[in-house]
Amino acid sequence: MTSSLSQQILNRKRRAIARLITYVENNHPKAQQALSELYPHTGQAHLVGVTGAPGTGKSSLVNEIAKAYRRQDISVAILAIDPTSPFSGGAILGDRIRMRELTGDPGVFIRSMASRGNLGGLARAAHDAIKVLDAAGFEVILIETVGAGQSEVEIARTAHTVLVVEAPGLGDDIQAIKAGILEIADIFVVNKADRPGADKTAATLKTMLELGRNKTQQIMHHGALMTINNPLPPSQDDNNPGWQIPVIQTIALKGDGVEGLMAAISNHRQRLIDSGELSKRNRARLADELEALLQAELMRRLTVHVPAETLSDIIAKLVARSLSPYNAMQIILEDYCS
Amino acid sequence: MTSSLSQQILNRKRRAIARLITYVENNHPKAQQALSELYPHTGQAHLVGVTGAPGTGKSSLVNEIAKAYRRQDISVAILAIDPTSPFSGGAILGDRIRMRELTGDPGVFIRSMASRGNLGGLARAAHDAIKVLDAAGFEVILIETVGAGQSEVEIARTAHTVLVVEAPGLGDDIQAIKAGILEIADIFVVNKADRPGADKTAATLKTMLELGRNKTQQIMHHGALMTINNPLPPSQDDNNPGWQIPVIQTIALKGDGVEGLMAAISNHRQRLIDSGELSKRNRARLADELEALLQAELMRRLTVHVPAETLSDIIAKLVARSLSPYNAMQIILEDYCS
Repeated sequence: MTSSLSQQILNRKRRAIARLITYVENNHPKAQQALSELYPHTGQAHLVGVTGAPGTGKSSLVNEIAKAYRRQDISVAILAIDPTSPFSGGAILGDRIRMRELTGDPGVFIRSMASRGNLGGLARAAHDAIKVLDAAGFEVILIETVGAGQSEVEIARTAHTVLVVEAPGLGDDIQAIKAGILEIADIFVVNKADRPGADKTAATLKTMLELGRNKTQQIMHHGALMTINNPLPPSQDDNNPGWQIPVIQTIALKGDGVEGLMAAISNHRQRLIDSGELSKRNRARLADELEALLQAELMRRLTVHVPAETLSDIIAKLVARSLSPYNAMQIILEDYCS
Repeated sequence: MTSSLSQQILNRKRRAIARLITYVENNHPKAQQALSELYPHTGQAHLVGVTGAPGTGKSSLVNEIAKAYRRQDISVAILAIDPTSPFSGGAILGDRIRMRELTGDPGVFIRSMASRGNLGGLARAAHDAIKVLDAAGFEVILIETVGAGQSEVEIARTAHTVLVVEAPGLGDDIQAIKAGILEIADIFVVNKADRPGADKTAATLKTMLELGRNKTQQIMHHGALMTINNPLPPSQDDNNPGWQIPVIQTIALKGDGVEGLMAAISNHRQRLIDSGELSKRNRARLADELEALLQAELMRRLTVHVPAETLSDIIAKLVARSLSPYNAMQIILEDYCS
């Protein structure tokens, strides 16, 4: 039996979608029932992750991509994950500013999520919000994250097609950052391509990709050139054969280069389907999600079982250095689930 | 009974310290015994977290701080956490480059840690490495992280004194990033203060801190000015009364401003002791550490209990949309620990 909330989401009622995502964020008891009802209707959307350091113009680019999908009459949802923002106020106002351009179009839905409390919580809420938007029938879901930390990268990497956005001249350490992010990119975008150094940034990325394929790579770090092992995981070269990671220059504020980027996203999706990599990525994403759920629930149960007083005593012993954290962990688990 | 490895660490033997940190990183069985033996000898070091976006010159600043401590004959260890680097090769070579300046000095120890696998693993390994360095008798431990992601910030925030490093002109989104990082700063450093805009960056930070105290704040985001609630947690104003977060300009490459920064760190430590906040922070850090250990061990036990075949069947059902992740979690936990 489908609740009226779920039914409204299947009918793409905007207020119901917004409400369920808020329930998901707040761990509201109604969230799980609705998500379970909606789950059979998910798995249709193409998930596009867009990640990059602050200052690369990600948000403008995401807006342009959304507009380009709308010109093709493809419905699109934007989920902007901002774990650096401890307040929802900013997120909501940010949405409104972005909404203005795309407003009144029932084929577009925009939502920001900020971190409230722990990080695992944000990843879980993001996964669930994606399911809500997927069930609501949005054909493409753009997941925008600040790609500077591993945790945000984790959220983006669960997408089908991952865009990594760079911009010219963002500082010396940028090469080091790229090393971590090379792994997850399906498409590189050099945005703000009218700025000085754009060609150089694009050329550097291409060289890194080339060297990556040759299993060694040189990067600048603390001013020293060093050779490292190939950071590209097999999935990029071997599991998705025939896919050459493109480097595309755009000027989001003028819309320049966006059509080429749209073609690249479309080509990548086709390659994923042809190579069977799409279903592998779906499996991996669901396995990640299950693990996050298990972890959260195990901790919740533990918290319920261990009295606050016991925990307080144990922490006092840790502070006094009479018990080590590892031994404390063993004592708690012995009493709880042996 | 203390093993010879632990005894060597208490005697500050460099090779033993390096070996145990490697054991910690690799989850070697010998790590836990040694850590338990060393635990009673920990809790003496002052932990200084240094975090900031790429390009702010954190590493150079950390080197200068270390040199300044050495001039005061205070022993110092540097732990550089680089979760964006998937390869230890870079970390090791980076260490060697940095070592050159401080080499041959038994009062200095430098170590980089890169992420291998999951993030919880890195946080746990970092906590344990800090304990090793603490037990080895280093009076100050500088913990350097890339402060752009929440996870890295988490590692830095467990320090006693947290330095947040900014640099002039790192892009438009910087204000948004600062909002997340304002929370954890005890001291702001505007490094590369000889660059244009340094005074403006410092003034902006001061204004944000001022507004923060007035419980509302305006930040630029996507080009729009917006008002948000005070992002400063009570700990900054109420729990550590009398501490005004200073904004200090430095030019790390020339050593300019470093003495003023050293005085601020020293003053902050004194305030922490006087206000009782030091022991509160120690308690919070140990509680965090215990939680991370519990989480990792619960997941390890679960993995041991659930046969791979069962897990594979469940994931197949998730892919087929015949079972939702939430229901899968319930099924697994019912069989495992009900």
